[in-house]
Amino acid sequence: MVEVGATAAVAQFVSGTSVEAIPDEVLHEAKRTLINVLAVGLSASVDSSVGVLESWDGGASSRNASDGGVASVIGRGRVGIERAALLNGYMAHLQDYDDTHFPTILHPSAPTWPAALAAAEQRNASGLETLAAFAVGGEVACRMAMSVYPWHYDAGWHITGTVGVLGAVAAAARVLGVPWEVGEQALGLAGTHAAGVRETFGTNGKPLHAGHSAAGGLRAAYLASAGFTGPPAFMEGRRGFWAVHSPDGHDAGWVERIGAAGERWELLNNGLKAFANGIVSQPLQDAVIQLRNAHDLKAAQVIAIEALVHPLVLELMNRPDPHVGLEGKFSHQHCAATALVDGAGHDAQFSDARVRDPEIVALRSKVRATVHESVREDEVHVTIRLESGDEHSIHIEHAMGSPENPMTDAQLETKFSTLANEVIGAEQAGALLEAAWKLDEAPSVTSLLALARGAAR
Amino acid sequence: MVEVGATAAVAQFVSGTSVEAIPDEVLHEAKRTLINVLAVGLSASVDSSVGVLESWDGGASSRNASDGGVASVIGRGRVGIERAALLNGYMAHLQDYDDTHFPTILHPSAPTWPAALAAAEQRNASGLETLAAFAVGGEVACRMAMSVYPWHYDAGWHITGTVGVLGAVAAAARVLGVPWEVGEQALGLAGTHAAGVRETFGTNGKPLHAGHSAAGGLRAAYLASAGFTGPPAFMEGRRGFWAVHSPDGHDAGWVERIGAAGERWELLNNGLKAFANGIVSQPLQDAVIQLRNAHDLKAAQVIAIEALVHPLVLELMNRPDPHVGLEGKFSHQHCAATALVDGAGHDAQFSDARVRDPEIVALRSKVRATVHESVREDEVHVTIRLESGDEHSIHIEHAMGSPENPMTDAQLETKFSTLANEVIGAEQAGALLEAAWKLDEAPSVTSLLALARGAAR
Repeated sequence: MVEVGATAAVAQFVSGTSVEAIPDEVLHEAKRTLINVLAVGLSASVDSSVGVLESWDGGASSRNASDGGVASVIGRGRVGIERAALLNGYMAHLQDYDDTHFPTILHPSAPTWPAALAAAEQRNASGLETLAAFAVGGEVACRMAMSVYPWHYDAGWHITGTVGVLGAVAAAARVLGVPWEVGEQALGLAGTHAAGVRETFGTNGKPLHAGHSAAGGLRAAYLASAGFTGPPAFMEGRRGFWAVHSPDGHDAGWVERIGAAGERWELLNNGLKAFANGIVSQPLQDAVIQLRNAHDLKAAQVIAIEALVHPLVLELMNRPDPHVGLEGKFSHQHCAATALVDGAGHDAQFSDARVRDPEIVALRSKVRATVHESVREDEVHVTIRLESGDEHSIHIEHAMGSPENPMTDAQLETKFSTLANEVIGAEQAGALLEAAWKLDEAPSVTSLLALARGAAR
Repeated sequence: MVEVGATAAVAQFVSGTSVEAIPDEVLHEAKRTLINVLAVGLSASVDSSVGVLESWDGGASSRNASDGGVASVIGRGRVGIERAALLNGYMAHLQDYDDTHFPTILHPSAPTWPAALAAAEQRNASGLETLAAFAVGGEVACRMAMSVYPWHYDAGWHITGTVGVLGAVAAAARVLGVPWEVGEQALGLAGTHAAGVRETFGTNGKPLHAGHSAAGGLRAAYLASAGFTGPPAFMEGRRGFWAVHSPDGHDAGWVERIGAAGERWELLNNGLKAFANGIVSQPLQDAVIQLRNAHDLKAAQVIAIEALVHPLVLELMNRPDPHVGLEGKFSHQHCAATALVDGAGHDAQFSDARVRDPEIVALRSKVRATVHESVREDEVHVTIRLESGDEHSIHIEHAMGSPENPMTDAQLETKFSTLANEVIGAEQAGALLEAAWKLDEAPSVTSLLALARGAAR
């Protein structure tokens, strides 16, 4: 048996894993992450910052189809493949509403899916091959993340920016079908762009990490396939990823064992977010919405929303009086109030206007969270007291979207419809959803992406 | 007096330094670095990898002028501004023949000049404002580098990739004329893309760092000017540049004092390389060329080239029998042999064919270097013995291109002409050189860049 280095093992996994060897549940998870990216991307596509990112250079790279644009931007038009990856990655992460690999807080889809889609559209890859490209790329990202967690994140790196570029290049290299020796150099060419620090959180710089990684990974795969040289052994090299990006520690085993017999796919530890805000208040929102729906509750009836919560809820999200939308995303009071009034926690619940709405403001003042050490992060006890004297209580053991209670396909479809319908209309959204569920049967990604682009503006 | 953070100080320096406040010698140095970038860029523009980088995405971003391309690529055509910055940055660093900020081994021009030029061409900035933009951007890069040297480089980072993006964004922000508060956020938006590890050395990944930084810095400046938010206090933030990229140490003073009264411009510690190879054998080449020219030496006359050298020459560049061009760049024997035969050490002396040339191979075997601890890095003693029994000796105290013996303007012009003439012809090269020396009088960079693009292919 020949000794194979960690980076070579990854490259061999990328090019050598047959579609048949990918478990059905992994391909199904790939579809779910795609549907989630499309939903969140459509919702984000109307944000004004997306227009800025699309045409910051005077539209020099942004063109419609008749002008030679070859890659689709979700909810928008067609542009060059690099710009498409940049935009789709940015939008997928803009609302903090994408997926999360629970063990590492990596968001694998935002950098990886846009690279897979851009390459697949340009190369006319089949739907199944595109799903496989995301599956292997996402797996690479998750395992790279495991190999440096927690040292790398603790040092201040935004792991979605850094490790993301490795997922992106893996997915694109898979679509391009390069030999593993080329793929290994592509990993180095891309990995040397790994970047993104947590100092950017709360600014447009954070979602830009995902787009930057998607575009950089895509480019590295194309460059390597055309003969650009990159360093082999990038992960384990003396001045490589582990040495430079995670000097305090790493665990090479996560990478060396990628694709080995008996290894569980890390992508199955990936979850979809139920609400477009900080993770720690999501059990509270889940509970309030369940009580609201069960008892048809209205804000005017409520005199108190009382919750027993994990300590992090007050540590990270105690903001009784938010003034702008972004602050609302880190206010458990606002999250609970909109959960009761709107029955939801989409990005729309975190607009500046919604944060200042008098009904919401009044209800926020009635939210009282108490910490108890015994309450787990994904757990909550909630009681809603009504003016009538009635009270309704619920105990959520594992909130929707947590590892033990993943979003069901039906719940994901509801999230998708809510976000997609208002951007491209219910009919087209329905067709897009169906195309995503059936992507493995499609000869190419063309139809799916035509629907995802939405109507001409 | 208001306390100003390090990043704010940089942003205020970028936007607040009047052209009149920039010393004449700094503006002159800016012209010299531009001439050097144009020379090296033209020479690199014919490398096959440049074509790959220009059109890896099927030319989706690469267009000629009639098609809307707005920014010039040295030795080539016009493309979008982001692609132009990428290409010019890559080419400026491809041959390892660019400038070096001696205290930090940073190559400031390769990431910074392309961002300044692309923004200036797009915004129709004057020649003087463009020179000023490079001067402040280059100064930012040099001082950022000083603030993390040596810890950051020792950790494995390629400082031209990491710090380079900060020089690029500073230069572009200067051209765009953004207020300092916007510039501060632009520094964060760009700085969070800071990347590049030394593991890439010897591959196309290394020069790609410079291009990637040029393009990323350019984009960040444009995004910030259009309203994208980025983190303030990026350098000194809790999860900012110093904390994450240089945890072993930093010296904030270099940044905080930028532009302060009495501070010398670090750009004046920048030097231009005399030969397109590893720095440690450059004294040897300088010596051999001087003897060759003084005594009209031919290879057939020579029985020995004997040198007394600094220990690093044998440690880093002892390769008696190189087989490919890149190995020749790290062979002091090959460097000395081509110095005698060709009287030069341009990239042309390091082609595969030149490395295998019988006359060079024969002469290489006659080169003998002996180490002596007392010889400084920029010093050498050389004796050339001839078949006739004659011998010629020289002692170089400070090799051309070292801090104590910078390349003169005349020597730079020779380097420029040698590299430029063969790509765009002597007449156009002469006009380009004149345009560069007179750039401060030009209403825009248009004429200069039209000459730099060269003939249509």
